Amino acid sequence: MPRSNTQVLLAARPTGWVTEECFRVVEIDAPTPNDGEVLVENRWLSLDPYMRGRMSDAKSYAAKVELGAPMVGSTVGVVLESRAPAGSGLAPGDWVVGAFGWQSLGVAKPGALRKVDVTRVPPQAYLGVVGMPGVTAFVGLYDLAEPKEGETVIVSAASGAVGGVVGQLAKLRGCRAVGIAGGREKCDYAVRELGFDACVDHRAPDFEAQLAAATPSGIDVDFENVGGPVMDAIFRRLNPFARVSLCGLVSQYNATTPYGVTNFHQLLVNRVQLQGFIVSDHLDRWPEALATLGRLVVEGKLKWRESIAEGLAAAPRAFVGMLRGENLGKQLVRIGA
Amino acid sequence: MPRSNTQVLLAARPTGWVTEECFRVVEIDAPTPNDGEVLVENRWLSLDPYMRGRMSDAKSYAAKVELGAPMVGSTVGVVLESRAPAGSGLAPGDWVVGAFGWQSLGVAKPGALRKVDVTRVPPQAYLGVVGMPGVTAFVGLYDLAEPKEGETVIVSAASGAVGGVVGQLAKLRGCRAVGIAGGREKCDYAVRELGFDACVDHRAPDFEAQLAAATPSGIDVDFENVGGPVMDAIFRRLNPFARVSLCGLVSQYNATTPYGVTNFHQLLVNRVQLQGFIVSDHLDRWPEALATLGRLVVEGKLKWRESIAEGLAAAPRAFVGMLRGENLGKQLVRIGA
Repeated sequence: MPRSNTQVLLAARPTGWVTEECFRVVEIDAPTPNDGEVLVENRWLSLDPYMRGRMSDAKSYAAKVELGAPMVGSTVGVVLESRAPAGSGLAPGDWVVGAFGWQSLGVAKPGALRKVDVTRVPPQAYLGVVGMPGVTAFVGLYDLAEPKEGETVIVSAASGAVGGVVGQLAKLRGCRAVGIAGGREKCDYAVRELGFDACVDHRAPDFEAQLAAATPSGIDVDFENVGGPVMDAIFRRLNPFARVSLCGLVSQYNATTPYGVTNFHQLLVNRVQLQGFIVSDHLDRWPEALATLGRLVVEGKLKWRESIAEGLAAAPRAFVGMLRGENLGKQLVRIGA
Repeated sequence: MPRSNTQVLLAARPTGWVTEECFRVVEIDAPTPNDGEVLVENRWLSLDPYMRGRMSDAKSYAAKVELGAPMVGSTVGVVLESRAPAGSGLAPGDWVVGAFGWQSLGVAKPGALRKVDVTRVPPQAYLGVVGMPGVTAFVGLYDLAEPKEGETVIVSAASGAVGGVVGQLAKLRGCRAVGIAGGREKCDYAVRELGFDACVDHRAPDFEAQLAAATPSGIDVDFENVGGPVMDAIFRRLNPFARVSLCGLVSQYNATTPYGVTNFHQLLVNRVQLQGFIVSDHLDRWPEALATLGRLVVEGKLKWRESIAEGLAAAPRAFVGMLRGENLGKQLVRIGA
């Protein structure tokens, strides 16, 4: 049994860009499961853009992390010890997804954990393509935007954990999938590995012309992850009756002055339906989404890449890098063996 | 039979603010109905903000008015002469709503006209509360935003032809109805005559504080007519799962530089559903809407006021004034007896 638990705490609230100094890594005594609980050794931590919001005091859809408390987050790990009832379905050695946050050990009741089968899907995929990011793509694209065959779907942060799934789900629906990403490498990955029809580098000096060329029939669905001027450029190309699934605005999370959206009137002119959403509001859709995504992975129809930081001490650096777009694909932290 | 037809033509496309010089009033020979057509003497012309869009070259949801052509618009008038088949249901003396534009006479086939009963509803009301503006309020509020009893509904341009109906329909649904309008007179009218619970003057120096005081439980439905900084202030007070019916952005129609919407992120944080709409996309809903609105008028449950310009030559001045917010209630032109 491990003797200590590594935690990453929120040490300071960021003003503007988050820095590594906002976090503090500590070692504390290993927790002990109470009656009815299990002890889990976390093997992988998911890093996601929403975590930036939890670091702030601003009103949001979820509670903020308190100063001095461990950062929140999803984890996948192995049950070390069980004091849960025999009928709980959990035994030492089982793999479980939990919300243990940025720490190497955790205790929880079985009802707060989801047992996963790692024989055909690697465990860390339950934090990505068969986890919250995959379900986000599924709900935001299929349920909220309802793309039809032949329509053009655009997704920003196209090489990311959510965006990569959005593009592949759009292709499976018979749509034209167009990505937007930062840099040639990410765009090449989206097109060559993930099967996007096109991917436009938003850093290119002629970005808007490239976007127009990649969307010759305009845009029917915008799966919006980024906001800012990239979103404004998308809005300019929306078709009548387009749908916008507003999933994230990552370009704004570290901004001290919010960007002013100048093409808002396109939402009126084109009678656009825009839906802001958070995947945790759609818990009723998770079972179907996870079943579909798991099947697609097993059938080899969903691909992904991972950027892996080694050890919890590397998590702050990886998190800042992810917000700067330095990762490719799903950003994970492998927690020491 | 009249010998001449007065028309108001689009003489020049505006850059920025529309002026009276953009129009030209002409007298031409009276039109003659062909076989199957009726000749109508228009008695009232409706002036509506959407007409500003038709004057521009910019891509929009409807065709622009060509230079030298009559301005488009809805009219109500009397059939003077009918060469329509006996079974058409139209005879001289009948009142009809048509889309004859800014002119005193017009010919049309009966299928393009809607016969109206002026015995219990005054004819010009078919251009307002029991016409396109009323249906706009009905569809945008009841169908798209689905307000529930006890929710707070806010509407900008609250004393206008659409906004006044929105507030009264919200009250009939058991909602708290809060208006926003320019100036004390309009706000008093909204509260005292139309029955809004509150109305905030957007010109007040402490507008945002007044808006907060008028919406102590936040905002569940925004029926948006105006855009600009007023909309940004509304967005700041949206509740989780709020709905925005995006009907108009009149503050922007004459702007040469679009306003940048800085509180766009509230649509994400609060998982807002926003729907841009144009009432002509919802023709299937007109019959029920018109029947409901007509019944409410007859029962005395819907009130309105009219601002009347006398004669088509006065229409350009009245139109510019309406866009500047100088009218109160429905802006009409009474076409010479």
